Amino acid sequence: MSKYDIIVLGSGPGGYVTAIRASQLGFKTAVVEKESLGGVCLNWGCIPTKALLKSAQVFEYLKHAEDYGLKVKDAEHDFDAVVKRSRGVADGMSNGVKFLMKKNKIDVIEGYGKVKPGKKVEVDGKEYSADHIIIATGARSRELPSLPQDGQKVIGYRQAMTLDKQPKKMIVVGSGAIGVEFAYFYNSMGTEVTIVEFLPKIVPVEDDEVSKQLERSFKKSGIKIMTSAEVTSVDTSGSGVKATVKTKKGEEVLEADIVLSAVGIKSNIEDIGLEDVGIVVDRDKILVNDYYQTNIPGYYAIGDVTPGQALAHVASAEGILCVEKIAGQHVEPLDYGNIPGCTYCSPEVASVGLTEAQAKEQGIDVKIGKFPFSASGKASAGGNKDGFVKVIFDAKYGEWLGCHMIGAGVTDMIAEAVLGRKLETTGHEVLKAVHPHPTMSEAVMEAVADAYDEVIHL
Amino acid sequence: MSKYDIIVLGSGPGGYVTAIRASQLGFKTAVVEKESLGGVCLNWGCIPTKALLKSAQVFEYLKHAEDYGLKVKDAEHDFDAVVKRSRGVADGMSNGVKFLMKKNKIDVIEGYGKVKPGKKVEVDGKEYSADHIIIATGARSRELPSLPQDGQKVIGYRQAMTLDKQPKKMIVVGSGAIGVEFAYFYNSMGTEVTIVEFLPKIVPVEDDEVSKQLERSFKKSGIKIMTSAEVTSVDTSGSGVKATVKTKKGEEVLEADIVLSAVGIKSNIEDIGLEDVGIVVDRDKILVNDYYQTNIPGYYAIGDVTPGQALAHVASAEGILCVEKIAGQHVEPLDYGNIPGCTYCSPEVASVGLTEAQAKEQGIDVKIGKFPFSASGKASAGGNKDGFVKVIFDAKYGEWLGCHMIGAGVTDMIAEAVLGRKLETTGHEVLKAVHPHPTMSEAVMEAVADAYDEVIHL
Repeated sequence: MSKYDIIVLGSGPGGYVTAIRASQLGFKTAVVEKESLGGVCLNWGCIPTKALLKSAQVFEYLKHAEDYGLKVKDAEHDFDAVVKRSRGVADGMSNGVKFLMKKNKIDVIEGYGKVKPGKKVEVDGKEYSADHIIIATGARSRELPSLPQDGQKVIGYRQAMTLDKQPKKMIVVGSGAIGVEFAYFYNSMGTEVTIVEFLPKIVPVEDDEVSKQLERSFKKSGIKIMTSAEVTSVDTSGSGVKATVKTKKGEEVLEADIVLSAVGIKSNIEDIGLEDVGIVVDRDKILVNDYYQTNIPGYYAIGDVTPGQALAHVASAEGILCVEKIAGQHVEPLDYGNIPGCTYCSPEVASVGLTEAQAKEQGIDVKIGKFPFSASGKASAGGNKDGFVKVIFDAKYGEWLGCHMIGAGVTDMIAEAVLGRKLETTGHEVLKAVHPHPTMSEAVMEAVADAYDEVIHL
Repeated sequence: MSKYDIIVLGSGPGGYVTAIRASQLGFKTAVVEKESLGGVCLNWGCIPTKALLKSAQVFEYLKHAEDYGLKVKDAEHDFDAVVKRSRGVADGMSNGVKFLMKKNKIDVIEGYGKVKPGKKVEVDGKEYSADHIIIATGARSRELPSLPQDGQKVIGYRQAMTLDKQPKKMIVVGSGAIGVEFAYFYNSMGTEVTIVEFLPKIVPVEDDEVSKQLERSFKKSGIKIMTSAEVTSVDTSGSGVKATVKTKKGEEVLEADIVLSAVGIKSNIEDIGLEDVGIVVDRDKILVNDYYQTNIPGYYAIGDVTPGQALAHVASAEGILCVEKIAGQHVEPLDYGNIPGCTYCSPEVASVGLTEAQAKEQGIDVKIGKFPFSASGKASAGGNKDGFVKVIFDAKYGEWLGCHMIGAGVTDMIAEAVLGRKLETTGHEVLKAVHPHPTMSEAVMEAVADAYDEVIHL
């Protein structure tokens, strides 16, 4: 029986990053993967969707070439080629992880892994032991009872990125990051898209003003949006799909070729031996402490199977922290209040910290600042005037409570707010950090200035 | 005679921003402008060039549409339309400044202003007085004796952005931000471009590795580059221009339609009354203290006419600081060591702080980290694998000495480094600030990790 210091179950952005950090720290490490290295993120999530969205973005430029003084004839997309490019990017990244495993001398055990009592892992009948076993098995698309996925007409994100044929009409159920990214992509490709969102607004976790702005942009680009609406049943018996949607006004039947169910995720915690070992689970999540230890010594869990935000960067950060703690390093627990979230449709959405509504619910006296890109020189020059940066400060203590951005490139701009908040910056310090001109990032400085009534360009 | 609290001479990004902040602080303010509100930056610099560069960037997408699974026929640019768009953006911004002046109740005095003794300003014969006079007259393209600008065949940046006709061949003399931006733009439009740089490398103020990377990218895109080369004379007598270029190998005559001289700037300090008032000037710059006071009480100078970096954001920051000090606020002097610089060609360049060479010259024991975008998932998905982020830390004290970026969108990413350095971050804190996945900004975190031998994706 092979013996390791650390075995990681699952090679997504939680698992493979954990394994690399473990190896750097001197641990003999193995990672168990049943499918492709890199997990959902690299193969069926973050990466291939960004490739699709890039094609959509470039296609938008083609369609609007005249706005930039350019001319094209017959701008067309080749749907197969767009999908193929996306798969190529994903495969390249997965090969990259393979290389990283090799370089870091991490054993990759291919197969379906289960934890066993006595610090063992069983992979397709073969047993391995380790001093520390880290569960990072991730999650999959959640299925609603009213919306069973058949993989053909009612699909999840996985099928949505490799459809053989571009659908003419699509219903996207759910408007979190996955839902709106696919809605944007398919709409851009020419599919007629309707978003059905159960809650009263799209991208429901975002600040209300961000949701409103995105709704405006999406509607302008032709996406239909139904909020406070629920798909109560689907009929796939005909040539397409008929979805019954319940709204405040009553019931309506929508017809489409495809229904994409993007109503969240379900942790992969079944049939991986948790009960056998006695690891405690609560409502779809493995319970862990600040260092990702489960109730059973030697067994840890990170990423989507644990209660924190189900995001790739959270999984990676948790895994790194988990093995640094195992290595005896002094580590600070992760600050789940300072995790950025990004959505890569156009305009992009990025945020960190409290929304205005959350801050007010907590009874905090806030100072709000907002700077629209319509007042930014760089945004004008780039043709990216949609959107804004909004900042929320504690009026009393000056703490930067939240930062909410919608616009071109904001997913690369939110890091400033994350680092600033980590370093407990004041608004004044952000204001006096000289932001280069002309950039979209000036909007952060100006939004902060607005909060303190010192905004220049409004 | 009209009396003001503050009169600002010049309405560039130094002048108009200063005027707005002055007005916010309760000062009765006027700004004097001989041409268009917004100065060179808005009308002939930062903003219109970014508009041209955006057209170039979109044109590149058109030319490489197939890389994204897209098809176009006959991708063409309409040079006039590209220039017209750029002028439209500049005019829009200038009108925006007009609106801001009005909104902030700032008097705009149109005409050519000169300072006079006794805290007076004369504008085309009419006198105005103020308690505080702020000189923000900016700069213009520097002329070399060997390269006199005739505005037709030998031109400066101003003419370069409004040429009637696209040149077939162009020589760009100087490879600072202005030179390489135009080189990139014209090459992208189909002009045959040769850069002639006096120093041994292009973008000479940047880190050596950045210069090398940009040179590689430019050469790949067809731009010819001559370094350690000097234009000793130009002959404009024929139909085009013949430029004699001296290199280590000897002399060579290059032919072109246009020579763009981009060899730096010259302060606008002549004929504005400085001698009359007795304001001390040294080597083309007005001497000021930490609060922009000249040697004569009541007279201040900010922006390109002063010794700091000749950048729009520096001018704005200086002006704000200047009037806040006048208002009696407690202000900290500007940290000129933490000013970001940006160049908006493709790939973009952005940097702040010391280069590796500068740090080593200062005898500092450094820790260097570098992360190439070729290892970034987002960069792969976006087709933006060129470039890297490089970070320099003081090995002993952990101070973040410098950050150097080249790649897509880095001009919007440098703000994180500016704020982090202002807040005296350690590398460890940057590392533990969770950067969202997948973004280009992860490269900052990974470069820092590389400096501390904790990089994951290399």
